[in-house]
Amino acid sequence: MKKTDIIVIGGSAAGIVAALTAKSTNPSKDVTLIRKEEIVMIPCGIPYVFGTTGSTSKNAIPDKGLLGLGVNIVIDEVTVVNKEDKIVSTASGEKYKYDKLVFATGSNPALPMWLKGRDLENVFTVPKNKLYLDSFQSKLKEFKKMVVIGAGFIGVEMSDELNKSGLEISLVEKLPHVLGATFDEEVVLEVEDQLTERGIKLFTGLGVAEILGENGVVNGVLLDNGEKLEADAVIVSMGYRPNAKLAEETGLRINQMGFIETDQYRRTSDPSIFAAGDCSEKRDFITGKLSGIMLASTASAEGRIAGINLYNLAVLKSFAGTIGIYSTALGDNAFAVAGITESLAKMEGIDYIAGSFTGMDRHPGNISDAHKQMVKLVVSRESGIILGGAISGGKSTGELINAIGFVIQNKMTVIDLLTSQIGTQPVLTASPVAYPLIKAAEVCLKKLRK
Amino acid sequence: MKKTDIIVIGGSAAGIVAALTAKSTNPSKDVTLIRKEEIVMIPCGIPYVFGTTGSTSKNAIPDKGLLGLGVNIVIDEVTVVNKEDKIVSTASGEKYKYDKLVFATGSNPALPMWLKGRDLENVFTVPKNKLYLDSFQSKLKEFKKMVVIGAGFIGVEMSDELNKSGLEISLVEKLPHVLGATFDEEVVLEVEDQLTERGIKLFTGLGVAEILGENGVVNGVLLDNGEKLEADAVIVSMGYRPNAKLAEETGLRINQMGFIETDQYRRTSDPSIFAAGDCSEKRDFITGKLSGIMLASTASAEGRIAGINLYNLAVLKSFAGTIGIYSTALGDNAFAVAGITESLAKMEGIDYIAGSFTGMDRHPGNISDAHKQMVKLVVSRESGIILGGAISGGKSTGELINAIGFVIQNKMTVIDLLTSQIGTQPVLTASPVAYPLIKAAEVCLKKLRK
Ligand SMILES: Cc1cc2nc3c(=O)[nH]c(=O)nc-3n(C[C@H](O)[C@H](O)[C@H](O)COP(=O)(O)OP(=O)(O)OC[C@H]3O[C@@H](n4cnc5c(N)ncnc54)[C@H](O)[C@@H]3O)c2cc1C
Ligand SMILES: Cc1cc2nc3c(=O)[nH]c(=O)nc-3n(C[C@H](O)[C@H](O)[C@H](O)COP(=O)(O)OP(=O)(O)OC[C@H]3O[C@@H](n4cnc5c(N)ncnc54)[C@H](O)[C@@H]3O)c2cc1C
Repeated sequence: MKKTDIIVIGGSAAGIVAALTAKSTNPSKDVTLIRKEEIVMIPCGIPYVFGTTGSTSKNAIPDKGLLGLGVNIVIDEVTVVNKEDKIVSTASGEKYKYDKLVFATGSNPALPMWLKGRDLENVFTVPKNKLYLDSFQSKLKEFKKMVVIGAGFIGVEMSDELNKSGLEISLVEKLPHVLGATFDEEVVLEVEDQLTERGIKLFTGLGVAEILGENGVVNGVLLDNGEKLEADAVIVSMGYRPNAKLAEETGLRINQMGFIETDQYRRTSDPSIFAAGDCSEKRDFITGKLSGIMLASTASAEGRIAGINLYNLAVLKSFAGTIGIYSTALGDNAFAVAGITESLAKMEGIDYIAGSFTGMDRHPGNISDAHKQMVKLVVSRESGIILGGAISGGKSTGELINAIGFVIQNKMTVIDLLTSQIGTQPVLTASPVAYPLIKAAEVCLKKLRK
Repeated sequence: MKKTDIIVIGGSAAGIVAALTAKSTNPSKDVTLIRKEEIVMIPCGIPYVFGTTGSTSKNAIPDKGLLGLGVNIVIDEVTVVNKEDKIVSTASGEKYKYDKLVFATGSNPALPMWLKGRDLENVFTVPKNKLYLDSFQSKLKEFKKMVVIGAGFIGVEMSDELNKSGLEISLVEKLPHVLGATFDEEVVLEVEDQLTERGIKLFTGLGVAEILGENGVVNGVLLDNGEKLEADAVIVSMGYRPNAKLAEETGLRINQMGFIETDQYRRTSDPSIFAAGDCSEKRDFITGKLSGIMLASTASAEGRIAGINLYNLAVLKSFAGTIGIYSTALGDNAFAVAGITESLAKMEGIDYIAGSFTGMDRHPGNISDAHKQMVKLVVSRESGIILGGAISGGKSTGELINAIGFVIQNKMTVIDLLTSQIGTQPVLTASPVAYPLIKAAEVCLKKLRK
């Protein structure tokens, strides 16, 4: 039996950051990261493997950060955790004694049992697994028409990249709109325009009745309105499930959504075991409710909290809750959201107002790479606190949404925002007199005063 | 004599926002904006007139925002303000009775008296004046070699744009480095590399002894080390002076740096008169000292504060102080700073630590428009509060510095930042496991714990 102080199970966003933080917080401890795969994919980069970057080998997370800090990397699968004796057993027959353990076992694509035809050949999911993705990619040249089921971020990004590389893509979504679970209508309509313009066929408001095939091979998708879409291959992109099976077998508490229960320091029901990332419980920053959000940025942040708090609890603040901050891009058009949307505010019964402003992200707006920029804010009517923001704009959208993320996480009010300062520069940002974030706050202030 | 409720003197960043905010806060009031020039330049866009955008007419601020809201625009020069009777007189002989008045008279380029040769033909400054800029631009084709004196933002941006449009540029700076007043050394060295690579000749650590000429026309610049630079034209870019003469004549208090004294609501020493923008007093957000910062974003924010508080003081929060947030770009390379630099912290005797991290602004870093991204943070050692940040990166730098601006203005500590969440996306941002802002905070935390 080997001995190590800290074991992290999982080698992706949560696991890497947990291991790095654990080691740099406790340099004298021996830290071991165990993961199944030889080469770890940049998870968010996976769609781009099918177009922009072109191969999984260009999408690998290097090990040098971990190795440089002195973290041991073990390629193996943890099969049993004995939490009483603090021993981890692996598929290769190895055993490790630990002092602290972090579950960062992530998530797997959902492939619902009720989905008829799910086992046909050329039905794919999008796991974070290089070997699977390589074999998927090697078959692409055999396909002409593809149906993507599910138009969340991943379904949309996959559709766009596969379309770019020459496939005919039909994108099917049960909700009334593409990305409808994350954005308000004004943004999703723009996304839909973009997708259609780029040649992707959209089937929204339509569920899938069944995946069709012949001789065990996929040949189409039957929609629940009776329409049949032809397809040489199908991608099922219907979300991800927390990979909490090992944790459950270990005897850790699992919450009603299937995530490993944790407190705000990322401690599980066992005092020596922490959990971070897609496998672990999250609560919404605004509503306090259990949340099913799965993001690499959230996973990294949780990995950091776990890593810092392993031995040294009280010193540190923890999360106030998980705030969803995401962005995506279709060519030069980017879309992003932080905190809650207007639709969610409505659903949650929050007394809110919303305001938006559309301008240009450069000034003057005739600068060659200028892009339209729309910013929307969702604000609590009672307190004036900013609860959410959304952007549709150019490539600086990904950082502007992080600015809005800080606004929300600091519980800034509309007035706080209006009396804050921002910086502007012609070729980098919108104009100071029409900076959409500030103008949107002005629109909100007017509504608050009514 | 005409009557109006609110007069704003000045039609640029501060004046526009003050008038817009005054009108939308008090829709029933009559608001009149008086400005000297027919067409207002986007001030920050001026350098780009000489290259990127190509003409002043592509760099105009449209009046439609003001007119649409019902603000009266008067093109005239205010010559006298009688604050006892509340009457403004103009060059055209008009008189206006006001209830509230806002000075937004801005700033003018400095052209020091001691600078020998300042009156020679083809010695230019960079005022925010379309007619001047047009005549300057129309003469450009006569010039081959140009010397720019002063390597602040404006000197650097002018040099870069003029160099782009084919002129041979020598840039002279008295400080040891280009942009040395605003950035720490690691950033300025990069800026200098960029400028040199683009063909601009740098003369740093060298003052100008005199501008040389023959027959009243410039032909060179003599440096204080005796070196002579040939030049067909010279741009003096040695900063701007607050335009507070009218305010002084009005009997308003002027501070020791020459700015119109104001409180945090932008009220001057006269209770009915406010001041905002480059002409008005600022205090540093961190040090509380009088500050000489002149930025369009700051001017807009002050215009907003003035406009909101004219009639309705108590409701509103005001500025905590002015935080300098600026960015600039050389081609695809952008540089930005918010709050204080390490050099300033040293000068002010602040007990600080600083940490930085360099990564890529996309993930994987081989995405075609990926750019190196360096983030540096300056942190108070005692409190862990983040006092300043700097970035050298790609085009999203302008928004990332605004994110850091919110971090500073919310007095977030390193721990607050490390337990905050950010969003990441492959084609829009750095990787979640190596997001330079967060990694820089980790470096700082390690130093704080020592
Ligand atoms: C196609 C795609 C695109 C995405 N785009 C974005 C985006 O743009 N932005 C964003 O924020 N998020 C994005 N996400 C979500 C993001 O990828 C996940 O939130 C992130 O991967 C979660 O990281 P994790 O470390 O928690 O888990 P995972 O990435 O699922 O990793 C789990 C790790 O645990 C290991 N493991 C599991 N069980 C065992 C075991 N028994 N023994 C040993 N090792 C084990 C695995 O080998 C793996 O290393 C995307 C996801 C996908 C699939
Ligand atoms: C070349 C250049 C580039 C810049 N780049 C940036 C940048 O990238 N980012 C940034 O944040 N800042 C930048 N700045 C700074 C920015 O331009 C100023 O901070 C901003 O213009 C200040 O606005 P203001 O309204 O206070 O004054 P000003 O722009 O100086 O305007 C003053 C106004 O007052 C009017 N006026 C004055 N006296 C009278 C009178 N007696 N009667 C009637 N009207 C009068 C003038 O006509 C004018 O309309 C740049 C400045 C320059 C010159």
